[in-house]
Amino acid sequence: EVMYHPSLAPLEWILQTWLDEIALWPLPQKFQSSAIAFQLSPTRFQIVQAKQSSAGPSCSMLENAFRRYFEYIFGDLKKPEKSRKKVYDSDLVELQVWVTSADPECDGFPSLQTDESYELSVDEPSAVLKAANVWGDDYGTEISDFPRFAHRGILLDSSRHFLPLKVILANLEAMAMNKFNVFHWHIVDDHLFPYMSRTFPELSQKGAYHPFTHVYTPSDVKMVIEFARIKDLLTPCYSGSSPSGTFGPVNPILNSSYDFMTQFFKEISTVFPDAYIHLGGDEVDFSCWESNPDIQKCMVQQGFGTDYSKLESFYIQRLLDIVAATKKDYMVWQEVFDNGVKLKDDTVVEVWMGNKMEEELQNVTGAGFTTILSAPWYLDYISYGQDWQHYYKVEPLNFPCTDAQKKLVIGGETCLWGEYVDATNLTPRLWPRASAVAERLWSDKSMTDVDNAYNHLVQHRCRMVKRGIPAEPLFVGHCRQEYKGL
Amino acid sequence: EVMYHPSLAPLEWILQTWLDEIALWPLPQKFQSSAIAFQLSPTRFQIVQAKQSSAGPSCSMLENAFRRYFEYIFGDLKKPEKSRKKVYDSDLVELQVWVTSADPECDGFPSLQTDESYELSVDEPSAVLKAANVWGDDYGTEISDFPRFAHRGILLDSSRHFLPLKVILANLEAMAMNKFNVFHWHIVDDHLFPYMSRTFPELSQKGAYHPFTHVYTPSDVKMVIEFARIKDLLTPCYSGSSPSGTFGPVNPILNSSYDFMTQFFKEISTVFPDAYIHLGGDEVDFSCWESNPDIQKCMVQQGFGTDYSKLESFYIQRLLDIVAATKKDYMVWQEVFDNGVKLKDDTVVEVWMGNKMEEELQNVTGAGFTTILSAPWYLDYISYGQDWQHYYKVEPLNFPCTDAQKKLVIGGETCLWGEYVDATNLTPRLWPRASAVAERLWSDKSMTDVDNAYNHLVQHRCRMVKRGIPAEPLFVGHCRQEYKGL
Repeated sequence: EVMYHPSLAPLEWILQTWLDEIALWPLPQKFQSSAIAFQLSPTRFQIVQAKQSSAGPSCSMLENAFRRYFEYIFGDLKKPEKSRKKVYDSDLVELQVWVTSADPECDGFPSLQTDESYELSVDEPSAVLKAANVWGDDYGTEISDFPRFAHRGILLDSSRHFLPLKVILANLEAMAMNKFNVFHWHIVDDHLFPYMSRTFPELSQKGAYHPFTHVYTPSDVKMVIEFARIKDLLTPCYSGSSPSGTFGPVNPILNSSYDFMTQFFKEISTVFPDAYIHLGGDEVDFSCWESNPDIQKCMVQQGFGTDYSKLESFYIQRLLDIVAATKKDYMVWQEVFDNGVKLKDDTVVEVWMGNKMEEELQNVTGAGFTTILSAPWYLDYISYGQDWQHYYKVEPLNFPCTDAQKKLVIGGETCLWGEYVDATNLTPRLWPRASAVAERLWSDKSMTDVDNAYNHLVQHRCRMVKRGIPAEPLFVGHCRQEYKGL
Repeated sequence: EVMYHPSLAPLEWILQTWLDEIALWPLPQKFQSSAIAFQLSPTRFQIVQAKQSSAGPSCSMLENAFRRYFEYIFGDLKKPEKSRKKVYDSDLVELQVWVTSADPECDGFPSLQTDESYELSVDEPSAVLKAANVWGDDYGTEISDFPRFAHRGILLDSSRHFLPLKVILANLEAMAMNKFNVFHWHIVDDHLFPYMSRTFPELSQKGAYHPFTHVYTPSDVKMVIEFARIKDLLTPCYSGSSPSGTFGPVNPILNSSYDFMTQFFKEISTVFPDAYIHLGGDEVDFSCWESNPDIQKCMVQQGFGTDYSKLESFYIQRLLDIVAATKKDYMVWQEVFDNGVKLKDDTVVEVWMGNKMEEELQNVTGAGFTTILSAPWYLDYISYGQDWQHYYKVEPLNFPCTDAQKKLVIGGETCLWGEYVDATNLTPRLWPRASAVAERLWSDKSMTDVDNAYNHLVQHRCRMVKRGIPAEPLFVGHCRQEYKGL
């Protein structure tokens, strides 16, 4: 598994917030609206860098964001909007974007340390958006905002079903609209291995390096599995005393397995800019290991008895050492911690098991480890009705602990595992259900009124639909853009 | 509610079956395949009317089907198919379609009495498809097929969410691929009334008559509700002793309500060609009636006490008389029968309540009424995993009864109610889950092996995806067309 931060800096999200006077989602930490309404004219209005901004005109990421949000604002004015005849108090001619930190990070990637706070002030004739630090100001600030949790992630699974790039990109856009900042790309698993490697060039006859096509080429994925098999990487399963022809998890008793991992993670660490690699380590099926006589022998030699989780820990321990050598930090699923593997101090442990979730949070943070929570937010589990309410009601810090332990909970992650999801149904299944998690992870703890959230979320969902993201309906009703009514 | 048979005659479906040598779905009643493989060449092969066919070249419905299936067969040959290098025994140059009944019904509509059986024989150099009756023949028949149940329906709900026409049309195509023959269009309900009426022209400034745009114009749907309210059609609800400003079900104590219904169903009966109108009659909420003092007075006068289901029956009884006068037959939900309303002998009663389903089937057929079953197939209820298996395992005739009673069960209907469904998620939620119902209603009773069905359904689902219907995945895996593997 590979952790991937989309290159969506906070500034991109901010404009969106400002566009929609009502039903801001996730709700900003501080928000004040006056009765004054400004008119935006597509011929007069512009989004510009403030004179004081540290990001210049060459900051292509910001320029792209300006263009995109201009399209969001005025894109549907091509169609006549007869019914909305508002009276405006005056004209707003520009939005100035003011990046304040010395390094605007135009070409960088966000990290969990990135300051995502911003302030937005709208007044005649200019609006000003300040970001990257918090200042006082003279403009009658209307929005002053920052995230409650630094890690606000979504896991998508391209191993159970291959997800075309356009689906992933569309959902990255939806993530930005919901202020998610971590895309946890579950790129490989038992089922598929859609990662095309350079280190092992015989796997690929592909052409020039490209960040997307390179790391995720859909064709001939089975070759990789076959390659791994040829290399003795996977454990041969036995039926009785002879090999059954099938293969289980990585073979933990061969040096060649670790040689492969060393080379492989060396490549991974250069291809992905992220600070973290998620190593998995959950739900390892031991039946194949149990069937293999060589592995049985190794279990005796190592004194593991019949406890295969000890063998797993033995393997993970060596894997962690390999990854640590790449200078990347790592995340692991909770079992790795539960099984007593020795972890680096700065390892992030992901708590995913629903039963005894609070106890696990206590234990993980009690041992001093940073943690993220995904247990209550497994969106692949579906049921009739408004299950988003359950996701919304979760309070991540609601477990008995010290303040120091609370600080170790850096966020959460909603997971849409891929057994029953592919390009045909992913987007409407993910949205707006994930939006409920988005507000929980961004907005203030006090936001717990489900009825109020419903009213906002209905509008936010319509906004997503309007921007081409087929988010499913929350309940009976229709969006303003569908028809205007009487 | 209005019952609508799509103009998809059985012949359209048959060709599809023949196209796919493997994984036919729903499985034909009799199917025999030889080891001989025929080549189809896009330059030589054609689909033609047999000389003996009673349908001539002016039968546009068939000609349309020919064109569509030609595209299905050869449409994706534009892309090179390198991996499928089959050796063919010989060339197949044509498919002759032989319609045998005196009236081919090219411009007609199917009914529940339509003979949907067909025989398909494939041999060099021609394949012959006979339909509309059953004959013996000399060709070494490979498929001889007929439906187990005459009524194989899908209910879609355009009242909770407006469904754009393109969504409905796409699903009609998917219905044809699954041999469903009744589209039960739940077109109006409390929430929306997206039916544009001619009888009440003040409702509509719309132009010329068109079968789709006319019966289902999306704009300004609220006007209809408003209109009904103005006409005192709906019951004013009370809060305490004064009207609350909201409105409940149709007001059953006003003559004007019945005048409206008389005119309205007169129009309906001409706009829709179907033999049946589904009148609903389920889940009437009595709270508004209970709050209204005029209705309370009427209850006393009629001697109904506090049993509002008696008032409902009183209303339904008059409604049924109105519909009977239009010469249409009608279907009703089971409550209408349960409440003792006097029904015409040929009324179809739809059994939708899951509890005591078998008892209800016994009662309804015991009273001599024809019935269709929808209780086990409410697809708006979703859950994690392969719920299609539950739909597949249902045996509609598994209740204690006589053979005569069994014959009264003319089929079933799967319902996708619209509270949580709209254009964003309808199609992948419906397919391939509804396909499980399709095989239950078409194929032989003995088809009960879920594992076998899984293998077929996976391929059938891929076929739908290939034809542009985003049917969701059954489980982990990929379609052949996604990539070819090693």
